[in-house]
Amino acid sequence: MPALFQLGCKSRLPEGLSIVAFARPEMTNDAYRDLMWDSVREFGDLAVRRDEWRMFEQRLSYVSGDLTRLDDFVSLKRDLLDFEEDFRPPNCLFYLSIAPQFFESTIHNLGASGIATEEGGWRRVVIEKPYGRDLDSAQRLNLAVGDVFREDQVYRIDHYLGKETVQNLLVFRFANGIFQPLWSRDHIDSVQITVSESVSVGDRAGYYDQSGVVRDMVQNHLLQLLTMVAMDPPGDLGAESVRGKKAEVLKAIRTVTDGEALENTVLGQYRGYLEENGVAPGSRTPTYAALRLYIDNWRWQGVPFYLRTGKSMAVKATEILIRFRRPAHMLFESTPDSQVSPNILSLCLQPDEGVHLKFDVKVPDKGLMLRSQDMEFHYESAFKDQAIPEAYELLIRDALQGDASLFIRSDHIEEAWRIVDPLLQAWDATSNPDLRIYEPGSWGPKEADRLLADNGHVWQLACGQHGAAD
Amino acid sequence: MPALFQLGCKSRLPEGLSIVAFARPEMTNDAYRDLMWDSVREFGDLAVRRDEWRMFEQRLSYVSGDLTRLDDFVSLKRDLLDFEEDFRPPNCLFYLSIAPQFFESTIHNLGASGIATEEGGWRRVVIEKPYGRDLDSAQRLNLAVGDVFREDQVYRIDHYLGKETVQNLLVFRFANGIFQPLWSRDHIDSVQITVSESVSVGDRAGYYDQSGVVRDMVQNHLLQLLTMVAMDPPGDLGAESVRGKKAEVLKAIRTVTDGEALENTVLGQYRGYLEENGVAPGSRTPTYAALRLYIDNWRWQGVPFYLRTGKSMAVKATEILIRFRRPAHMLFESTPDSQVSPNILSLCLQPDEGVHLKFDVKVPDKGLMLRSQDMEFHYESAFKDQAIPEAYELLIRDALQGDASLFIRSDHIEEAWRIVDPLLQAWDATSNPDLRIYEPGSWGPKEADRLLADNGHVWQLACGQHGAAD
Repeated sequence: MPALFQLGCKSRLPEGLSIVAFARPEMTNDAYRDLMWDSVREFGDLAVRRDEWRMFEQRLSYVSGDLTRLDDFVSLKRDLLDFEEDFRPPNCLFYLSIAPQFFESTIHNLGASGIATEEGGWRRVVIEKPYGRDLDSAQRLNLAVGDVFREDQVYRIDHYLGKETVQNLLVFRFANGIFQPLWSRDHIDSVQITVSESVSVGDRAGYYDQSGVVRDMVQNHLLQLLTMVAMDPPGDLGAESVRGKKAEVLKAIRTVTDGEALENTVLGQYRGYLEENGVAPGSRTPTYAALRLYIDNWRWQGVPFYLRTGKSMAVKATEILIRFRRPAHMLFESTPDSQVSPNILSLCLQPDEGVHLKFDVKVPDKGLMLRSQDMEFHYESAFKDQAIPEAYELLIRDALQGDASLFIRSDHIEEAWRIVDPLLQAWDATSNPDLRIYEPGSWGPKEADRLLADNGHVWQLACGQHGAAD
Repeated sequence: MPALFQLGCKSRLPEGLSIVAFARPEMTNDAYRDLMWDSVREFGDLAVRRDEWRMFEQRLSYVSGDLTRLDDFVSLKRDLLDFEEDFRPPNCLFYLSIAPQFFESTIHNLGASGIATEEGGWRRVVIEKPYGRDLDSAQRLNLAVGDVFREDQVYRIDHYLGKETVQNLLVFRFANGIFQPLWSRDHIDSVQITVSESVSVGDRAGYYDQSGVVRDMVQNHLLQLLTMVAMDPPGDLGAESVRGKKAEVLKAIRTVTDGEALENTVLGQYRGYLEENGVAPGSRTPTYAALRLYIDNWRWQGVPFYLRTGKSMAVKATEILIRFRRPAHMLFESTPDSQVSPNILSLCLQPDEGVHLKFDVKVPDKGLMLRSQDMEFHYESAFKDQAIPEAYELLIRDALQGDASLFIRSDHIEEAWRIVDPLLQAWDATSNPDLRIYEPGSWGPKEADRLLADNGHVWQLACGQHGAAD
């Protein structure tokens, strides 16, 4: 709703767009509008726009109904057709922000009620995560969705892909002549993706305990970030070109056995998780995961991709770190005082969006002593007057405009589950799993270092906390 | 002398080093020491080190003599041997900071007097510029020097090569894995080297009017900078490896006819030069030069190198600007609002030593609008506590230690003259040369833009004046 309101303020919503809410409680339109204003107000910068809200809320209306009852959908359809006397909406976007157990029945009802039938206009559906909880359930959900919608009508949303900096990855990689030639195993030694959260599971403990970090973060956000980093250059920016290249990366991620999955993963739980309200006694749900993945294709063969994410960690940071190979020939001696360090390109998504490039320079007046230094770029200082839009703004607008480039295709979903399934299964099957307890406010379990140490690597962050390393 | 004093303060001079001055005026040691203190004091930060000077000046002594009289060298030799009763200097470095017309006689006398004979220690000679005034005179001087000294005893100095940032070029290029693969015609579109001075010729007008900008700056400093940028990676950092690679670049610079030389050059003179004290009436000596050069080898075939330098220009700046090719495939449309700009790497030597890397980013909240932005690194902020040493400090120390890597070899000198000779000859032979008058404080004659416009390029600066462009 804040994103919709923002789009409204920027005059970026289609003329005559109506937003119809559908949920169980009985409520008047006015009560719903007030409820929404309360939620929008929580965003400080929106609270002052009361006058604009008055205009915007005219678009809002409310219909009460049960997602599991076909009758309610039939009556919703009638409501929509009668919406205004002389107005029959030609186009409809169904936005499913609902509990996952209602996905299949809702989609079925959208079909069975005829509300999803394209009569004189398009029908599209946006589906919020979680999209399945393993490969099987995701495949079932894809089948159910496919019964009612064509793939090009389906917009599986991952708000990470709507973030400016994630999109900027495309620009960074493909609009700059110098990065593309370096972007392969010939020059890149390893890649790290860190998505650390400083908050605990908090209110979401009940839900979270059922899913855990692999389903909550790895299968979706982290793998999506990985595809943006690793994808081959598409021929154009069309949704199918971009998503085709992303699918190729996911398909090329090495399939591992259950045993190998555990070997290439460290799972942890922050101390105190078991005391959170809603967590099952003795729960072994992981709140931290570190993974080592390999992509079996021409571009990335042999280059380890390290992913880590967790709750209650030292800082909130999202960062992609590309470590380049050292120069082929070592002209400068590495001594304890003077290391020839690998070049590191760091794409920081939050909190401080920017780019760092670590390179070696000579320390003045010290002979050939080298030191690694950062070249830096920060969005905030470069674009002072440009507010960074909320990720949902872009994605909602794209969906309304029919641009699916930044949404997840059915094969992405299934490939992503294929990648994490062995891990989930091995974990569930293990009676005595290696769950590493870590201190809240730390960088996660020390055991995660082992994943990198095999290749002589260490976890690193360049931007986020300005050098906060594990 | 300031550099020697600095080295003394840092305890970087060999134990027992004596500095013996040899010049025409009659003077006592004490008078000479006072004279030197006066000159050292002009450097503000040295003025406070009076106590250290008292220690240092013990090394100084003075001998009066005439560079053209062999007898005076014979007696200088005797003086040196008698220098202290129990001290016979095993090693001698002759530092020729003298008017060029005395070079040949001085070197002859060093040989004939026996003072340059290596008896129980080494003899080396440092020769300050100008080293010849065309290919012929430089070859004659090389022959004269070669009569007395082996090549490995000869240290032709270009203080530009002693600057930290020039040396850092070696580190930048060869210690960083990401730049070497990009460093060729495959990825680089053009190179610009700007050495602009804001001062006029001033006191030096008399000398300057005899030489002009090509001899004063282009043949030495600019071509040396060019070799540092363009040289192939050496196998090691030894003087012969590094200088061998530099010589290869100079040899590969395309030889042009006199006519082509003028076509690829714009020469200018700042308005008011003719009124300077010591300039010949109606002098057509250029104070500004812009050149387009090509390097005929595998690495650089077809890549234009643009060089420009001048007096009385807008700012004092030394900058090497590498313009990379645009991406092979244009994924993002270039519109008047949104240009896909080439990446530009800018190595700034002065006034603000640092590195800029221009790359394209997405403007937030504006669809796929691109804007070129800078990643930056500045020595001053990175090494706050490290004073950047004077170029001569390093070079004098290198010469004392026998490291000739940063000095000019005889073949460098001759190749550099070969490159500018056609231009000098065509200029002298032209009765009505295209001397472009430019305003003091400008970026030189507008005609210099033509050299770049042929290839769709423009003069640029990234660091120096933060985007001051022509």
